[in-house]
Amino acid sequence: MPDILHAVGIKATPHQVYTALTTIKGLAGWWTSDTDGDPETGGVIHFHFGPKAQVDTKVLEPKRDTLVLWEVLAAHDDWIGTKIRFELRQDGDTTLVLFKHEGWRSPTRFMHHCSTKWATFLVSLKTSLETGKGTPFPDDVQISSKAA
Amino acid sequence: MPDILHAVGIKATPHQVYTALTTIKGLAGWWTSDTDGDPETGGVIHFHFGPKAQVDTKVLEPKRDTLVLWEVLAAHDDWIGTKIRFELRQDGDTTLVLFKHEGWRSPTRFMHHCSTKWATFLVSLKTSLETGKGTPFPDDVQISSKAA
Repeated sequence: MPDILHAVGIKATPHQVYTALTTIKGLAGWWTSDTDGDPETGGVIHFHFGPKAQVDTKVLEPKRDTLVLWEVLAAHDDWIGTKIRFELRQDGDTTLVLFKHEGWRSPTRFMHHCSTKWATFLVSLKTSLETGKGTPFPDDVQISSKAA
Repeated sequence: MPDILHAVGIKATPHQVYTALTTIKGLAGWWTSDTDGDPETGGVIHFHFGPKAQVDTKVLEPKRDTLVLWEVLAAHDDWIGTKIRFELRQDGDTTLVLFKHEGWRSPTRFMHHCSTKWATFLVSLKTSLETGKGTPFPDDVQISSKAA
């Protein structure tokens, strides 16, 4: 099955990146500013993208400062049952984030779109940590000229 | 074999996007400003990214305003023999670009990096056509805190 893969290097400690991936405040700083739910292990986080789109993820067992893993419970049909993985590796004074959105059943047009969109959100994660200001929804980078 | 997939929607005609992918001036507007070579079918285009990185691609048989396809002749080892494909589809007053960098032998760390970087360059293609100003190398979006 095809995966979406990305990597960004962030001038921050693994713990700072881990915090941005495991707290509502951190997540709201780079993916969507309208985030709520329970970010603890076993909890469900709700990511809202306006009235028409929402992603609910279950938080699977993390490894502190090293791995964050979600299972998608509710979202666009293509996403149901997929997993979203963030591996963190310290590299000098930076942290490398290796990202994988895995379990896509086929390389749909929507998968192409999501791959590009994930890249822009991972750059948002990077800038949220390096400058204090990311570009979460609704201030996200537009990659289509109409709604996806 | 894993592929890198992306999509962007551009407010431009398929012919305008095709021109940005098949002329030296067009390519220099979004991937690297230091581009030369022969963009005709069977020709080799040289993409320079400073003194340490270069990509040479052979131009395979295109379909006018619909498909641009390159084979990578010289670049980072992971890229040799891979193919880079741009499919263009008119969608109302926009053009959808479906991108695929195919033929990777394994999902290396460098593949993760290139996937994210391609997304930023495809956004650069979009802005080069919509605003007249892309972000080609050396003005490209930085996704690492050190050289890749």
